[in-house]
Formats: sequence, C-alpha cells, structure tokens
Amino acid sequence: MESQKKSILITGAAGFIGAAVAQKFIDEGFRVITIDNLSTGSRENIPKGVEFYEGNVFDTKIISLLVNENFFAILHIAGQSSGEISFDDPEYDLNSNTTSTLKLLQLARQTNCKNFIYASTMSIYGLQPDEAIAEDFEPNPKSFYAVGKLASEQYMRIYSSKDLNCISLRLFNVYGPGQNMNNMRQGMISIYMSQALKNGSIYVKGDKDRFRDMVFIDDVVNAFWLATFKAKSGYSCYNVCTGVKTTVETAVNSIVSLIGKNISVVYEGTTAGDIFGIYGCNIKIKTELNWQPFINFQQGLSLMYQWATKNI
Amino acid sequence: MESQKKSILITGAAGFIGAAVAQKFIDEGFRVITIDNLSTGSRENIPKGVEFYEGNVFDTKIISLLVNENFFAILHIAGQSSGEISFDDPEYDLNSNTTSTLKLLQLARQTNCKNFIYASTMSIYGLQPDEAIAEDFEPNPKSFYAVGKLASEQYMRIYSSKDLNCISLRLFNVYGPGQNMNNMRQGMISIYMSQALKNGSIYVKGDKDRFRDMVFIDDVVNAFWLATFKAKSGYSCYNVCTGVKTTVETAVNSIVSLIGKNISVVYEGTTAGDIFGIYGCNIKIKTELNWQPFINFQQGLSLMYQWATKNI
Repeated sequence: MESQKKSILITGAAGFIGAAVAQKFIDEGFRVITIDNLSTGSRENIPKGVEFYEGNVFDTKIISLLVNENFFAILHIAGQSSGEISFDDPEYDLNSNTTSTLKLLQLARQTNCKNFIYASTMSIYGLQPDEAIAEDFEPNPKSFYAVGKLASEQYMRIYSSKDLNCISLRLFNVYGPGQNMNNMRQGMISIYMSQALKNGSIYVKGDKDRFRDMVFIDDVVNAFWLATFKAKSGYSCYNVCTGVKTTVETAVNSIVSLIGKNISVVYEGTTAGDIFGIYGCNIKIKTELNWQPFINFQQGLSLMYQWATKNI
Repeated sequence: MESQKKSILITGAAGFIGAAVAQKFIDEGFRVITIDNLSTGSRENIPKGVEFYEGNVFDTKIISLLVNENFFAILHIAGQSSGEISFDDPEYDLNSNTTSTLKLLQLARQTNCKNFIYASTMSIYGLQPDEAIAEDFEPNPKSFYAVGKLASEQYMRIYSSKDLNCISLRLFNVYGPGQNMNNMRQGMISIYMSQALKNGSIYVKGDKDRFRDMVFIDDVVNAFWLATFKAKSGYSCYNVCTGVKTTVETAVNSIVSLIGKNISVVYEGTTAGDIFGIYGCNIKIKTELNWQPFINFQQGLSLMYQWATKNI
C-alpha cells in the first residue's frame, strides 16, 4: 500500500550523488522527495518516481511545503559542491551549503524526523600531514566551500540529540557513472575523461603528483544507505574513502590506457583552494557502520568509461 | 583639513563595544563611518561625529554605498552577540555574524583597504580543559553564535594576503560603562548589576561556581586600537583577556558589596549553549601587539557601578 512506504527527503537528486542515492531508495521501495535548484544538476537526472520540488533548499517557501511530512530520514546532499567555484560567489556558497542545513535541521526537529545524514567533504581537513586522515584530525578549511561544510557539521552537532541522530559523511573524491561530463570545473575524473573523449587531449590544472582518495559512486550510495539505518543517538562523522592514494598522473594514465589511443596530456598551473594531496582513514566507518569499499579504482574507472562512451 | 582624516569603518557603533571603539577613533581625529541595524544597540549610543548608515551589514544595498570609500581599516564589531539568543533564530545569527563578514571582506578587497579587524569571541573554544586557553587550542563551538564567529575567522584566513591584514580578536567577557542595562539576555555583569539596582535582587541562571575571564571595555578598545595599527601581513588571532578566573559568585558578591545594602541572590537552572568555565592565555597579544589589561576586575566593576547608578 502506497501510504505505508517510508518517506525520505533527499536534497539534490538532480545531481550526481543525490540521483544515485535517490535511485537506491526508490529501488528499495521508499517514497522519495527531493528539492533541487537545477543549478548544476539536471531534471533528467532525477530518478523516476521521485517527487520533485524545484528551488533552493534555503528557500523558506519550499521548506514550508514539507512541514506536514513524516520523514524517516533527511539526506542533505544538495549544495554548491566545488571548492574552486566557492571563490566565485562565497555568499551563494554559504546559503547553499550552510543556511540550507540550518533550514533542514529545523525541519527535522519540526517534523520529528529521527535521522539526518549530511554530505560533508574531506575538504574540511585542508592541509594536513602526509598520512591517512582520521576523523579526529583538526579541520583546517582552505576554501569557502570547506568553511561552509564545516559550519554545517557544527550545526548538526548542536542540533543532534537522543531524538535526532545526525551523521555527516565526509566524502573524498567521488567518481563514477552519472557524473556530469559537461561541467569542466567539478569532478577530477569526469573532467579528464570528458576532455579525453571529446578533445583527444587532457589539460591538467595543477601538478601530476597531487593525489586523492577516489571512492566509487556505488560505495558512496552504500555509505548513505548504511548511515540512514545505523544512525545512533547524537552526532557522528565518518570518512567515506578507500584509504588508497591515487595520483593525478595515475588517474590520467589510466584514462588514456582505457581509451587505447593517442591522447596528449598537458600539466599546468594551480587551482584556487586546492589541496596538494589527501587520503583518508576509513577504520571508523568500517567499524561502526560496517561499510567497506567494494570497487577499486581500476574497476571503477572502467565502469565509468563504459558508461561515458555511451553518454557523452 | 577634513579630507585628510583617515577613514575607518566600524560596524556596530550603536552597541556597547562598537560605540566605545568608535569614540576612541573619533577622539584620535579619525573620520568614522558605521553601519548598525539598531537591533540591540541604540541611536543615542553612536558617538557624535560618526557617520551613520542604518541597516544590516549583510545588506548589499548598504555595502554598495561604501564602494568609493578609502578605508584605512574596517573594524567589524556589529553582530548578534549572544550565544543564548543565537538559539532563537540561527539563520539571523548566521547572516548577522557570518554573511556580514563575507560582505565586508569583499568590500575591503574592492576598496583596497589593508586592515580588517574582527570582533570574534572566546565562545569558539567551547568546552575545554580547565587551563588558560591559548589561541592554538582546537575550537569546539557549542552555540550557533560560536559556529558563525568561527566561520568568519576562517573566511578571514582565506581572504587575508600580503595586501590584506586580517586580525580576529577573541573577546572574553567584556563589561564596563556603556553596557546595555536593559537587555536581560546579554552581558553577565550588566544583567546582575541591573537586577540589583532595579529590583534589589539578583537572579542567576546557572551555577555560582562557573567562572569567566572578565575584561574591561577600555582594555578591549585598546586591543582594537593596537590591532588596527600593528596589523601584519596575513591572518592572526588574539585572545583579549586578563588570564584571571572570576567566578559568578565573586562577581555577584562584588556587586552586592558595591551597592552596600541587602540584595537577595538566587542561583537556578542553566543557560543553553553556556560554557561552565573559561579563562584565557594572553601571552600572544601581549607579545605581538604589546597589549596589556590595565584595569582589574574590582577596579572595572567599581567604574561600571559609578556609571550605572547615573544611567539606569
């Protein structure tokens, strides 16, 4: 019976990660509602069956339409998601990533929602020593994006209680099928793969020895899923990462090798607010949420490449 | 010649601290401009000679009136200034304390202003071990107010450069003549003194053994003054504190003793987001800004009492 379905609010279901998470909940028989302003996502991305409110999550009018809902969980995934782009309009970034969280936490409290899951980011760590970053390292945000995400985490810490479980998932570099292949300022792998497929060349803004912790979209979806159901009282945060360093050069060479023909590669310049190298420790999420990454980088890249050749 | 005066933007000059700082700059021959929304401050507080723009600092229209100014320094003192009150309307708090900082940092950059001084707070430290808190302790904000102030500091860290010196002054418990004696939710000393003078009784919300680091308004003004002229390249933050613990009980008993007649005192309940005890280490500001606190608590309280008896 339709009315017995549990309702989930997933913001940002027109975007890469939000769409994938929404699809999972639809597949598992949930009623899914989303809010998305289509600023970087697109309407076609929203999975079939999702109820869609178009607008900003920080817009009081939209939130007020949801006060009679009975959400099992709120998953806040919408937001300006690029450190680099946050320098263009810091105020939009703050509204999109921080005011939005406040509004949703208030909604959670108002509607007696018990579970609040937030798409946070490894960017909050900023510059750190060259070791696997654990959740208790002191944050050191270097972009407006990271400041806003960290403030959201702190708001969750304050709002969380025995009646409102708050979990922030600090996502490392997420990649995979469904990533926006047309946005050339967001998503390391999607940018390189798109350039290679469209132009036959890859232009890398920054050093080849920079490294990241690449986590595949399906594993990220699984983290949101587990967090939704294993939420415990109070506030927790978890790294969502593989613990493996992948250099920019490895990523680029792997893409070139998948394409199997001559691709010119140029390395040049730097990216504002960028971090040289970061990778995470995932012991906490493995232990407490029973999560693990199933797809390694070469597998994930291959899956993404197969998808990209059909969707570019 | 009027036009040769250096211009200073001091936000919040209708409030307790802003008015005192503005008065100092007026006395020293500066041209002072202020923005204040009169939400907790009052028009009569604004020192004579200050050019006044009424409105919110986060209002783009007001900021746009100042883009042709040539500020020697911007001192951002306006803002919602109570941890407790930040729970009433977290979003106003974020706008008032964080969006405002973004706007002013952008204004500083746009107008080639070289010095940006921010009224931050000891609240960003949150719960800490019982020792004098130094600037390198990891922040642990427990109120929306503290989260917003900390985010502002992080924005300053990002905006600061060799051309924009940013200093945040982490004010501990400021008290003294000029404090609002009618706002019963803000300012520990002003609340107790006002109750005692008006009602002949003091009602304390919280434990008597809680302690604070009480810093006198003139010493705080001096910290802003020194920071304005000793600003060095990049970002710095300083505790503005005495390093002395004063318990609530000491404060209350001292007030009772100054009044010199029978005052009933009741201790009860707790305050949301309140910190049990905190005091600061002031070595950094002493060393780098050559600041020191001149007025001890008993002196300061006596000066405030003399003022209060004439102004209540």
